[in-house]
Amino acid sequence: MTAPMDDDRPMEPEGATIGPQTTPFLHRIRVRWGDCDPAAIAYTPNIPAWALEAIESWWSHHTDHDWYRFNIDRRLGTPFVHMRLDFRAPITPRHALDCEVRMTRLGRTSVTHEVCGYQDGVLCFAGEFVAVFVEAGAMTPMSPPEDVVERIRATAAVPQGAG
Amino acid sequence: MTAPMDDDRPMEPEGATIGPQTTPFLHRIRVRWGDCDPAAIAYTPNIPAWALEAIESWWSHHTDHDWYRFNIDRRLGTPFVHMRLDFRAPITPRHALDCEVRMTRLGRTSVTHEVCGYQDGVLCFAGEFVAVFVEAGAMTPMSPPEDVVERIRATAAVPQGAG
Amino acid sequence: MTAPMDDDRPMEPEGATIGPQTTPFLHRIRVRWGDCDPAAIAYTPNIPAWALEAIESWWSHHTDHDWYRFNIDRRLGTPFVHMRLDFRAPITPRHALDCEVRMTRLGRTSVTHEVCGYQDGVLCFAGEFVAVFVEAGAMTPMSPPEDVVERIRATAAVPQGAG
Amino acid sequence: MTAPMDDDRPMEPEGATIGPQTTPFLHRIRVRWGDCDPAAIAYTPNIPAWALEAIESWWSHHTDHDWYRFNIDRRLGTPFVHMRLDFRAPITPRHALDCEVRMTRLGRTSVTHEVCGYQDGVLCFAGEFVAVFVEAGAMTPMSPPEDVVERIRATAAVPQGAG
Repeated sequence: MTAPMDDDRPMEPEGATIGPQTTPFLHRIRVRWGDCDPAAIAYTPNIPAWALEAIESWWSHHTDHDWYRFNIDRRLGTPFVHMRLDFRAPITPRHALDCEVRMTRLGRTSVTHEVCGYQDGVLCFAGEFVAVFVEAGAMTPMSPPEDVVERIRATAAVPQGAG
Repeated sequence: MTAPMDDDRPMEPEGATIGPQTTPFLHRIRVRWGDCDPAAIAYTPNIPAWALEAIESWWSHHTDHDWYRFNIDRRLGTPFVHMRLDFRAPITPRHALDCEVRMTRLGRTSVTHEVCGYQDGVLCFAGEFVAVFVEAGAMTPMSPPEDVVERIRATAAVPQGAG
Repeated sequence: MTAPMDDDRPMEPEGATIGPQTTPFLHRIRVRWGDCDPAAIAYTPNIPAWALEAIESWWSHHTDHDWYRFNIDRRLGTPFVHMRLDFRAPITPRHALDCEVRMTRLGRTSVTHEVCGYQDGVLCFAGEFVAVFVEAGAMTPMSPPEDVVERIRATAAVPQGAG
Repeated sequence: MTAPMDDDRPMEPEGATIGPQTTPFLHRIRVRWGDCDPAAIAYTPNIPAWALEAIESWWSHHTDHDWYRFNIDRRLGTPFVHMRLDFRAPITPRHALDCEVRMTRLGRTSVTHEVCGYQDGVLCFAGEFVAVFVEAGAMTPMSPPEDVVERIRATAAVPQGAG
């Protein structure tokens, strides 16, 4: 079984995709003792996990659906096909970890988010995450439902290439 | 506090870095029920975590030091500054997850690994991971100890640009 | 929705349950850097997670079914209803963590395991874990399939109260 | 190395310990897709992890010290020596998980908390957790600092056996 490809066919009539968003969504994470390794900083794999938590909160905020509801109630899965992160400064429990999530592109069958994490004003990590839309269970590509697209479109800039 | 930069100054007299390794190191992971989400496939953040586990095993195999011993006994930290992953096929508990780890470059203050994960012969993910060497505690850049470099050098191709 | 009750009705004709096993099953865990907190010992919640991993391996060893196969292929769920652990000594990456798993009782709709974890011969934790058998999805109590019971019966002492 | 014993010597002049608290502290947890297994309910080991997160929040709330600050800044460790949990109902992302934390006993070198988790008014789990106070690093028993005891005493009932 292979992961669905993002065919990148244009989603909008004008041939444009939706995005980028101009205003990021903020998701705050409380870093804890158990998240840190013996170097007394967050163990690295927690960071992509937090970025995904922030992206899931972005979905909840914008569409009233978390991944559980999308999958169970709407039969829509959003598996990730790519992630890329740069780690700029150690993360500790001394400060909250403020994650700024910005959707940069919503295509026909994929979506891209940027997530930047800050502690006390310092950029700790920056990453890009690409997910595709699939039918839950079958894992075959599908487009997101129109009501979901509509709500996201309302948060983004005018489609590139429009009118 | 900012993460140390990789200055990329050459490590070897000839101006070359060490690597790439010709033969990958194999680390097998047993995927479990609790690693999977309600879509019945491994939840994404487990995948970078497994890749790091495979890289740590690479260190143990090649140098007899895991990250605990490096940090506690040798005062050498190896924080990651970059990771990039492509997810190609869903991962499930049906098969072992065989991770092939190959060091592609050992520089003066950084090291790069490639990790590819296979289940039943199918490529599930491929990633690149860059870590830097720092003095544990101070988090200031340092070069890895010569005995460690020596053991890694023995596993890699002739330095590029040599002779 | 409430968790199924263990009605404790006897499973065997003689009114006895199956167990305890006389010989424990050994599951070895490699403790890692990322499992440890800034005190340089394993963060506590990893320990019940490891105990469950050991119990899942016990199932695989004795019945050729891990929890994934039980749930997906046989529609049998085994949710836990109780756990109790004593932590006796810190766990570190210095040694393997050897978990001894012993089934102490297989009843009509529940099963009890004891798990003891050792590092370098020292008892680090001891725990008891009770799970119930349910129909996957419906979460209603059921008895385990006879082929599974048969294989477990073969590993245990003569039923108490028999003959 | 063995874990410190709780000698249970009385902490208060009257021979009494402090507690129980009359009013629980509430810590709310957002359950997520990635916390759930293919049965679409929270994977069991997440539950003790959440209970500990709730207990850590109890400490932050009552003493302004989380475990990171206790360990790093005050050199006070609080390793757990015992936990016991009953799981009563499946936990899902459909509702918040409200954890009520109540300290039931503060002794000379140990502390006991009860944690009950509710979703939508239904009790999902109930547990008891005992930790000891140790000097960070040495892991030798110590009593908590008086300023910390004072703040906790103020939240609890009149010492049993007093006056």
